[in-house]
Amino acid sequence: MILLTRKADFSSAHFYWNSSLSDAENERIFGKCANRQGHGHNYTLEVTVAGEIDPVTGFVVDLKQLKDILEHEVVSVYDHRHLNHEVPEFATAIPTTENIAIAIWRRLEGKIPNARLHRVRVYEMPDLFADYYGEHQ
Amino acid sequence: MILLTRKADFSSAHFYWNSSLSDAENERIFGKCANRQGHGHNYTLEVTVAGEIDPVTGFVVDLKQLKDILEHEVVSVYDHRHLNHEVPEFATAIPTTENIAIAIWRRLEGKIPNARLHRVRVYEMPDLFADYYGEHQ
Amino acid sequence: MILLTRKADFSSAHFYWNSSLSDAENERIFGKCANRQGHGHNYTLEVTVAGEIDPVTGFVVDLKQLKDILEHEVVSVYDHRHLNHEVPEFATAIPTTENIAIAIWRRLEGKIPNARLHRVRVYEMPDLFADYYGEHQ
Amino acid sequence: MILLTRKADFSSAHFYWNSSLSDAENERIFGKCANRQGHGHNYTLEVTVAGEIDPVTGFVVDLKQLKDILEHEVVSVYDHRHLNHEVPEFATAIPTTENIAIAIWRRLEGKIPNARLHRVRVYEMPDLFADYYGEHQ
Amino acid sequence: MILLTRKADFSSAHFYWNSSLSDAENERIFGKCANRQGHGHNYTLEVTVAGEIDPVTGFVVDLKQLKDILEHEVVSVYDHRHLNHEVPEFATAIPTTENIAIAIWRRLEGKIPNARLHRVRVYEMPDLFADYYGEHQ
Amino acid sequence: MILLTRKADFSSAHFYWNSSLSDAENERIFGKCANRQGHGHNYTLEVTVAGEIDPVTGFVVDLKQLKDILEHEVVSVYDHRHLNHEVPEFATAIPTTENIAIAIWRRLEGKIPNARLHRVRVYEMPDLFADYYGEHQ
Repeated sequence: MILLTRKADFSSAHFYWNSSLSDAENERIFGKCANRQGHGHNYTLEVTVAGEIDPVTGFVVDLKQLKDILEHEVVSVYDHRHLNHEVPEFATAIPTTENIAIAIWRRLEGKIPNARLHRVRVYEMPDLFADYYGEHQ
Repeated sequence: MILLTRKADFSSAHFYWNSSLSDAENERIFGKCANRQGHGHNYTLEVTVAGEIDPVTGFVVDLKQLKDILEHEVVSVYDHRHLNHEVPEFATAIPTTENIAIAIWRRLEGKIPNARLHRVRVYEMPDLFADYYGEHQ
Repeated sequence: MILLTRKADFSSAHFYWNSSLSDAENERIFGKCANRQGHGHNYTLEVTVAGEIDPVTGFVVDLKQLKDILEHEVVSVYDHRHLNHEVPEFATAIPTTENIAIAIWRRLEGKIPNARLHRVRVYEMPDLFADYYGEHQ
Repeated sequence: MILLTRKADFSSAHFYWNSSLSDAENERIFGKCANRQGHGHNYTLEVTVAGEIDPVTGFVVDLKQLKDILEHEVVSVYDHRHLNHEVPEFATAIPTTENIAIAIWRRLEGKIPNARLHRVRVYEMPDLFADYYGEHQ
Repeated sequence: MILLTRKADFSSAHFYWNSSLSDAENERIFGKCANRQGHGHNYTLEVTVAGEIDPVTGFVVDLKQLKDILEHEVVSVYDHRHLNHEVPEFATAIPTTENIAIAIWRRLEGKIPNARLHRVRVYEMPDLFADYYGEHQ
Repeated sequence: MILLTRKADFSSAHFYWNSSLSDAENERIFGKCANRQGHGHNYTLEVTVAGEIDPVTGFVVDLKQLKDILEHEVVSVYDHRHLNHEVPEFATAIPTTENIAIAIWRRLEGKIPNARLHRVRVYEMPDLFADYYGEHQ
């Protein structure tokens, strides 16, 4: 078994707000992230798949196909979008780095032929990232 | 003369739109940046100052003071803000990387004791940046 | 379960020397790191915590609180310090990258509310780093 | 147990071609990588070893020795070489990132005194890398 | 006047050889770069243009158009190619970092609407790069 | 004319202290950098040379020779050293980033065959650097 990781980027706006909390509580918990005008980030996504190497190609996964899946399932939906207002999963979940990683896992799971999704890593900034290995880990 | 450069970061939302153009023209010119829900970036700012070294300190400029000026004049105004809606200079100017560099120059010019502002560089993403050297260059 | 990683930086001096060895042995084993005048590095610390996402906040761990813990427990003690002379754990342990990772683990273990310390990674330079997962791994 | 990782670089030429397939199939599968004139990359290798810290040195592994092993076993063989034409393991295996990681594992396994090889990571580019943990993982 | 810089990447093979020199002289001057099987690099190109900001768009240069020009004039010709064998300018000039920078300048000069080509920077590796400002500088 | 830049690294200890000032003044001006036990950094040096390309080699400067000069004149003197105690120029000058850049310029000036020293850049950390272009600029 071998692991292959490919990166992709998306630039999005977001803010943190829980409408079941008071304004004061939102501001206490989320600080400047609670500004509902939104701010944004250059997110970096690292998707790791696991599998056996195909002896014909030397690949775990067709790289062009993997890139197209990331583009179609994630980048085309998240990039240059306001996550809170335009991406359905964040109508209810707060778009924290943790929740974005889980949402991307769910978008990709079962979509990658001949390989198993192993890890989704999302960097919100170079000094902050979340890793998700699926529900069974 | 020697040059000293310090970096600072801010994360902001923005979009590109010229209200004197039609919707179709905005979309043709600005593409996915024309989405008025906004998207965002981790901007990196590099401010370069020029001057002579103070023989007492070995510094061109007091680094703590320079950091405080960048924080007060730029980061506290731009970070975790929606540039189009919350930063006054972008009520009229489109917040392109070029216009952000010029706006930061104007915010910093004349504010740095004992040194001359030499260059403002703004990275919107690691592969795109603008440099401004002031009006007289 | 999800993992969240936050980076922090500190700049410190150190040298490698085991006083139970002869000068010649120290120089043979540690090479130029045995210079007792000391040299130094920009260390980068990556702290990974594991836990469940709080459905109210979308966070595994309060980011502001995590940053304050790293600052209080590690950065304020190590940054701009000579590790051999000023940090108590290196009065006896040689401040190698491995020993620094273990020392930081011990400083942080049990201090992070609602999450489990998963990994401490310390970069001495971009091309050299140590990972510690605790005694039970 | 603690993990120590050291990076090394090599710059090599390669191409992807399976001589048991037709030209058309090679081009369909490998795209522009099928150009048999070759292209090339700045590869980055990360070698992770696992072990106990030697209480005399504070090291899992002697860093100078580890660097020499990477140089002798990998860099001197791969760097400034055409992988398909000059490195024996790629006379038969296609030099994909996955196969390079496995080949480096085989070159290093059993060569590192007092520590166990834990992981070989190979970056072909900053946005694509393979991880191999050995046959028994 | 303001400067805008955009990066692009290409991965190519090359070697250094001057056929008017003896084999021994080639090996003395070019060392391991003289291996005529070729080796390769992930090159990074930074193209800087200078101009005035268009008040309608806030741009010095249309970014989509600039990206297309870099793709058409440089990347599509150099990427996944063997520079010595497949790129016409290197039939005679040795593809050193310096000569690649000049060749790219010549490919781009006069092709960028409404802006002046200011600088071409080519990184062969992260620790080596050449800058060219044109013949008149 | 073309410019070629090569990077080199050194890891050193230093502190900031002007013995003609009182302890209180040193602490007010230099803050935590005034700790005379010292701290340290991974410095990155970028040396830029300017010249004409040699038509025989395609080089402005012999890269192996340039690397050897940087190693001999700078790295072997500064690396794994305490700048204040072991490098002669910092017996009198405070080893600020600015003064280090000037000291390296003086060490390199006139030593590079067939090319002119154009710029010395020194990074103390990734977010702070000084540039020196010589006395006549």
